[in-house]
Amino acid sequence: MRKSKSGQAGSAVRPAKGDKHVYLFGAGLSEGDGSMKALLGGKGANLADMASLGLPVPPGFTITTETCAKFYTLGAARLHERIRGEVEAALKRLEQVTGKTFGRGANPLLVSVRSGAAASMPGMMDTVLNLGLNPETVEAMVARTGNPRFVWDSYRRFIQMFGNVVMEVEHDAFEHELEAVKHARGYTLDTELTADDLKEVVGRYQAMVRRVKGCEFPTDAMDQLRRGIDAVFGSWNNARAVKYRQMNDIRGLVGTAVNVQTMVFGNSGTNSATGVAFTRDPSTGENRYFYGEYLINAQGEDVVAGIRTPQQITVKGSREWARARQISEKVRRLQYPALEESMPAVFKQLDAIRAKLERHYKDMQDIEFTIEDGRLYMLQTRNGKRTAAAAVRIATDLAKEGLITEKTAVQRVDPAQLDQLLHPVFVRTAEAKSKRLTVGLPASPGAATGQVVFNAASAEEWAAQGKQVILCRVETSPEDIGGMSAAAGILTARGGMTSHAAVVARGMGKCCVSGCGELQISYDKKTVVCGSEVIREGEWISLNGSTGAVYAGRLETEDPKLTGPFAVIMALADKYRTLGVRTNADTPRDTAKAVAFGAEGIGLCRTEHMFFEGDRITSFRRMILVAETVKGLRAALAACGDAAERAVLEASLAAPLKQYNQALRELLPLQRKDFIGMFKALKGRPCTIRLLDPPLHEFLPQDVAGQEEMAAAMGVGVEEIRKVVESLHESNPMLGHRGCRLGISYPEVTQMQVRAICEAAAAVKGSQPEIMVPLVGHVKELASQKELILQTIAEVERQKKVSLKIKIGTMIEVPRAAITADQIATEAEFFSFGTNDLTQMTCAFSRDDAGKFLGDYVARGFYDYDPFQVLDQDGVGRMIDIAIAYGRSVKPHLKVGVCGEHGGDPKTVAFCHGHGFDYVSCSPYRVPIARLAAAQAALRG
Amino acid sequence: MRKSKSGQAGSAVRPAKGDKHVYLFGAGLSEGDGSMKALLGGKGANLADMASLGLPVPPGFTITTETCAKFYTLGAARLHERIRGEVEAALKRLEQVTGKTFGRGANPLLVSVRSGAAASMPGMMDTVLNLGLNPETVEAMVARTGNPRFVWDSYRRFIQMFGNVVMEVEHDAFEHELEAVKHARGYTLDTELTADDLKEVVGRYQAMVRRVKGCEFPTDAMDQLRRGIDAVFGSWNNARAVKYRQMNDIRGLVGTAVNVQTMVFGNSGTNSATGVAFTRDPSTGENRYFYGEYLINAQGEDVVAGIRTPQQITVKGSREWARARQISEKVRRLQYPALEESMPAVFKQLDAIRAKLERHYKDMQDIEFTIEDGRLYMLQTRNGKRTAAAAVRIATDLAKEGLITEKTAVQRVDPAQLDQLLHPVFVRTAEAKSKRLTVGLPASPGAATGQVVFNAASAEEWAAQGKQVILCRVETSPEDIGGMSAAAGILTARGGMTSHAAVVARGMGKCCVSGCGELQISYDKKTVVCGSEVIREGEWISLNGSTGAVYAGRLETEDPKLTGPFAVIMALADKYRTLGVRTNADTPRDTAKAVAFGAEGIGLCRTEHMFFEGDRITSFRRMILVAETVKGLRAALAACGDAAERAVLEASLAAPLKQYNQALRELLPLQRKDFIGMFKALKGRPCTIRLLDPPLHEFLPQDVAGQEEMAAAMGVGVEEIRKVVESLHESNPMLGHRGCRLGISYPEVTQMQVRAICEAAAAVKGSQPEIMVPLVGHVKELASQKELILQTIAEVERQKKVSLKIKIGTMIEVPRAAITADQIATEAEFFSFGTNDLTQMTCAFSRDDAGKFLGDYVARGFYDYDPFQVLDQDGVGRMIDIAIAYGRSVKPHLKVGVCGEHGGDPKTVAFCHGHGFDYVSCSPYRVPIARLAAAQAALRG
Repeated sequence: MRKSKSGQAGSAVRPAKGDKHVYLFGAGLSEGDGSMKALLGGKGANLADMASLGLPVPPGFTITTETCAKFYTLGAARLHERIRGEVEAALKRLEQVTGKTFGRGANPLLVSVRSGAAASMPGMMDTVLNLGLNPETVEAMVARTGNPRFVWDSYRRFIQMFGNVVMEVEHDAFEHELEAVKHARGYTLDTELTADDLKEVVGRYQAMVRRVKGCEFPTDAMDQLRRGIDAVFGSWNNARAVKYRQMNDIRGLVGTAVNVQTMVFGNSGTNSATGVAFTRDPSTGENRYFYGEYLINAQGEDVVAGIRTPQQITVKGSREWARARQISEKVRRLQYPALEESMPAVFKQLDAIRAKLERHYKDMQDIEFTIEDGRLYMLQTRNGKRTAAAAVRIATDLAKEGLITEKTAVQRVDPAQLDQLLHPVFVRTAEAKSKRLTVGLPASPGAATGQVVFNAASAEEWAAQGKQVILCRVETSPEDIGGMSAAAGILTARGGMTSHAAVVARGMGKCCVSGCGELQISYDKKTVVCGSEVIREGEWISLNGSTGAVYAGRLETEDPKLTGPFAVIMALADKYRTLGVRTNADTPRDTAKAVAFGAEGIGLCRTEHMFFEGDRITSFRRMILVAETVKGLRAALAACGDAAERAVLEASLAAPLKQYNQALRELLPLQRKDFIGMFKALKGRPCTIRLLDPPLHEFLPQDVAGQEEMAAAMGVGVEEIRKVVESLHESNPMLGHRGCRLGISYPEVTQMQVRAICEAAAAVKGSQPEIMVPLVGHVKELASQKELILQTIAEVERQKKVSLKIKIGTMIEVPRAAITADQIATEAEFFSFGTNDLTQMTCAFSRDDAGKFLGDYVARGFYDYDPFQVLDQDGVGRMIDIAIAYGRSVKPHLKVGVCGEHGGDPKTVAFCHGHGFDYVSCSPYRVPIARLAAAQAALRG
Repeated sequence: MRKSKSGQAGSAVRPAKGDKHVYLFGAGLSEGDGSMKALLGGKGANLADMASLGLPVPPGFTITTETCAKFYTLGAARLHERIRGEVEAALKRLEQVTGKTFGRGANPLLVSVRSGAAASMPGMMDTVLNLGLNPETVEAMVARTGNPRFVWDSYRRFIQMFGNVVMEVEHDAFEHELEAVKHARGYTLDTELTADDLKEVVGRYQAMVRRVKGCEFPTDAMDQLRRGIDAVFGSWNNARAVKYRQMNDIRGLVGTAVNVQTMVFGNSGTNSATGVAFTRDPSTGENRYFYGEYLINAQGEDVVAGIRTPQQITVKGSREWARARQISEKVRRLQYPALEESMPAVFKQLDAIRAKLERHYKDMQDIEFTIEDGRLYMLQTRNGKRTAAAAVRIATDLAKEGLITEKTAVQRVDPAQLDQLLHPVFVRTAEAKSKRLTVGLPASPGAATGQVVFNAASAEEWAAQGKQVILCRVETSPEDIGGMSAAAGILTARGGMTSHAAVVARGMGKCCVSGCGELQISYDKKTVVCGSEVIREGEWISLNGSTGAVYAGRLETEDPKLTGPFAVIMALADKYRTLGVRTNADTPRDTAKAVAFGAEGIGLCRTEHMFFEGDRITSFRRMILVAETVKGLRAALAACGDAAERAVLEASLAAPLKQYNQALRELLPLQRKDFIGMFKALKGRPCTIRLLDPPLHEFLPQDVAGQEEMAAAMGVGVEEIRKVVESLHESNPMLGHRGCRLGISYPEVTQMQVRAICEAAAAVKGSQPEIMVPLVGHVKELASQKELILQTIAEVERQKKVSLKIKIGTMIEVPRAAITADQIATEAEFFSFGTNDLTQMTCAFSRDDAGKFLGDYVARGFYDYDPFQVLDQDGVGRMIDIAIAYGRSVKPHLKVGVCGEHGGDPKTVAFCHGHGFDYVSCSPYRVPIARLAAAQAALRG
């Protein structure tokens, strides 16, 4: 006997702690516990936990997630060299505690081999049941159970599962053999197969595997086990699992654990059963009864398969279930008795376990159990998935019940999920009963139904007549704002999640489905064609902006309720958060909505949206038509020294200047009225108003028809309009003549806007306007606009005999502003980070064009998330850090906020909490999300 | 007597040092000296200096530039309260030393009142001569001189000058009176006017002033002086002066000084004269003779007026002058004698002063003198303006003569001026004799002449036939590169200093005049119309790219000489500079030229320019046509799990993939050939090659005609091309699918380019390629391209059995790259700042669109310079500082350079020297400029 070898064997049985791969559980022993999810996976940790709690868990062992990582670095062969000793020792103990033997003997031990990562990935990875069956153990099992059909069916299932999962034989090949036997016998259902039939199926399976794979189906149980473990480890990186982790943002895990567990059989007779249950209603969160289903004489997969109708756990649940299906109490009790009725003792035991688990985990549990010959076994428990409504109710209820603290309750709700609760939704079952036309991108959540219109003008007209409309466009442009605002929902054929339609709709909290490539929209015919379906103007369609589904017809919707548990959780969030939450709103209506959602003010009011409403666009366009002429003549005048020439220039300037000032005079009272409405809705809350931002060409029609229409409306030639459109054209409008550059070129526009703000502030007592200068890159730009603003404020103060306290600040959205923030801060009373544009310029991503590669960038992991949805913390975030540090180096109490889409993203909110922001500002519908995310960030500390 | 008042008066006569406004000079006293330019202005300081040197300076005093600043803060009235005492005291001294009395008496003192700022601003500000004349002093002067015509002419001149400059009476009003008298007498010339005539003119002037201004012309000399001083101070901020300072980049001055100086008269008789002279030839810099002109019996203004022909100073100069004009020696001696001949004693004195001044100032001087009754007076000396050639020669000569050190010589030449020496120029006088059609923007310096063609293809064809052509386009686009390269010069009707034509032409060192708004170009008729002039294809025109002038016809040009003093100054520059200088070049020809200009390697080789040459564009376009299809199908394949679907996808991929690879295979040998040519021209110098950068749509024709042509060339339908053009369209191409994003989407393009580089490197011994990945924003982009590059290098090494040392680095042009430079540096062996794009993204300025406001921004002083010409040091410079600091924090010896237009700008070169750069890279023609600027930066320390 060689000492060293024996020493090695010994160390495999009792390895050093860092080298331990296998953790035992059940039968009075738990090497792991619930805190070890990272190492043992969720399933493994909870099995160990349940065993510790004294619950009836079939004994087994967990091979750690770290072992999975080694599987990938060492390869299967070298891994098994390392862990063989531990696995064999664990099996030996299983044999001891169960009194069974693995792969042989009169009382054979069968095991299940299941995956189980630290995060739940249901159905994504592989499972093998009934492992350990072979001709010898089948014979022994038959002898022992006296139930040959059960045993041969188990063997058939095992060969099929193992063959498919481990040996990679196509699923269809097995089905083919099974069907052949059923066909020969004239059967329809699997249940008609007798034990002998199943024996024949097993024979055919084995022959088929031999044919396809060129080898025998393995009969050695240890070989089966080793290969089963490899298959589970291997499934960690199958395409499905990788995709799932990507989609669900599951990161930082090293692999899956493998749980090897003694098989128990819910299908071993009528005193056996299997079931799944939630400790509370996962749909509403209510704690009314023990919510779940079971099947007698069945295995877990039968419950899911949907061939037999599962029965309810409790009598109360069963009765409700029957009532909804108009099943009489008599029939129910006979055919679908509750577990509480069919196995009252087991029910009692299970109900006690339910209470114990909730107390232990302090959360709603999703459990799996099996009853074998009247004996209850717990196979799994985990925190149950739930709807947003349920999440909110459960969190608040658990706090009320004293199981968790308020702080924990706040952390129990996923902020992103809240969105579900804020928008109208289709009434239950409406979608299931309706005709789905196509699916586009879920661009802005909520449900909407309405009559189709194909242009913004119709949308506004019809809406004014009290009709509910869906605006359907190939894509939208800023000119459509009025129509978008009037519509109940927006549907586009082109454009992604960050297209104009999507961004504006989300800002408005309006349902939008974008990028429905299948739709063919004809503006001329006023039809939208989808496959063979033709929908005409005025016909009803319905949109689910949360899924992207588009339905023909009118689906009933219902409004969200913001009371009850929702109000409770929001109050708790406000109690714990330190970060302010404002909203982006441009109308009194949106403002009121945002205030109802808890906004503490407006962080971004985009004044240009006001220009699109009704007749205003005409005044604004009239202004644009002459603005460049005015600017050009003024520049010429400034440069001209000759008196005669000056006189000529001054004469030419007179007419356009008159038109220009007239247009601005027309706009002034309209803007003032808007501001008055908003200030009133805000009831003294602050309101950050951004001066005119988009390039002027965005306000002009780019198409011939629109230009002709505009020419007619203005009484000028279409050529004149075309000339202005051309002269305003820009190669890169994102980096062009916009933002404060407009206010510098056309100071009267700034003056008009500031005057409207000041006059509104004078009219509404307690209003707190803050004026924000956009697209500042150089402190002198800000200083120059600020001078103009201060002059105008002083003028209004003099005229109205009031004293106005108006803060003046700037958006930080140009990288140059960020890195010269120490200079900018000398002139600014606040910074608001325009993270949309800051991202575009920092990363050199045009939001309109980046679709060509950005998806690929995220898929490759260059960026963890789309940087237009979740702030790019490493890049743009660093820019922000620099700006805040520079800014506060000269003004320690400089107020700092963020506006733009990112302000409503929970990860970005957490970033803002941790990086010195005073507030975030987001669209009204994201205000509750931001409040909750801010509270969670504060509680994480 | 109130004590305090007397104390004040006393302190005005002898003020505290900080409060001294007036500095005396001449007649044995100099309160100032040459070092006090900032306070006394250039003229005042040098007058004090000359007085100290014992030169004959008419005595006077200088009122400081700081007084001018006070003039603007205090206003004229309060200023004069402060300085009255000092001025009166200074005048008193003048009276004492001259024995004359100001504004009265038998021997009246007349003074000149002249402006004089610290920087030379010739003719921009006001001057008043003969101040102190009034009826009393006129009479006294007549009595004293016995020359009434001289006196009355002086009085007439004084009234006219003072009336115009101080009283703001239109110049024409005086001319009108003068003409009236001449007309009445039947005179043609002013010289025909007698003393009596002039007396009448004076009377008419006085009456006219009374009529126009409603007041008498002042007779009180002190009043005249006060108002004269105010006028000079006021002229500091007249439009002309402000514009001049702006254009000549004169900054940081507080105002102009005023020099009040005893009048001396060059027009007091035939023993009087006045002249200007340069101590060396300001055109060539040669020290051949005393170069200057004088006029007998004249005032300074007469020399400039051009009515009389000035005579030369030296006999040698006079003879050369006469020879050029075919004037016989006899006539010359009689009519145009040199000063050396007419006043030999004065000449001797002046020549001695010439030598003294050069020794004192150690530089070529521009002097003004007056001879009054045989007595020489020095009125001004200053460093003489000179051509670039003269600057270089004078600096090297002075060093050779031991007057200045080598280091000083290097600092004496303005690097920007060198540009004049590097391009072909028109032979002397060619322009003066030619018909100028119009003036555009001086977009790229040099002179060019050629036959007009209207498209790039013709340019290439005609050039291939040995013709010299000027490419005339409304504007140019990347498709025109081949034609631009073939042309001798480029003329465009649209586009500014940073238009495509301008930027590319400067890069090529090719003469270009852009933005000639007056030109109407018709591609159909093949004509360019300018006013009434029509020029047809094939007709000759000539361009001066340094001035923007466009001439009809063929003007003779000559090539620059890079030997002699130019070579000397460059050698000195190289001796003292520490910053490397590389070049931006894309062809072997440009490379050779740059090496001749002293480039130490290539800092930027833009591979895409290679794709436009000849047939290559066809292969490249073929690649583009299928590239998106290939990309799309590959993405679909990657996402597809279904075997049958995969097979379909694979089948559809086969044909486009074949075309795609075929196109790349066609391009490979062509690129390799280019690189071989460049490596050979570089003779072992390093060559930084940037991988494909521009968006693909730039390679496709955007107009219908071009698309049809392309369709025909490729044998595909025009619809197909239109579809691809449309699908490639971008809203903001600057921030779109370009740079490394292309290499990531189309890895085979990167592979092809890298292979071409490696195979060329293997073929040319000693070549040092460096591969640069463009538009990196995230380290993972770089890492991904680097992996591909390294694989390809390894492949070629294996195949060619060579070992290649190829550095891999990146352009820093995206702000995100700059602020995450610590991460980027882990993957990069060098950084090259792409300051053009970095400026665009940092400042949010689209170079194509910023014309709408950027001029205004510079005019308002938001930016000191156009940030696309001179690096914006406060903003982009700070971004660069951050990037270098971050980059070197992980790689202390990281090589850092700059490429792009800024690399050749002297201010930017100085920035790079001071901020840790290893090298700058600029277009070949700017290499000498950068070398000199780098040396000067090093010498400034």
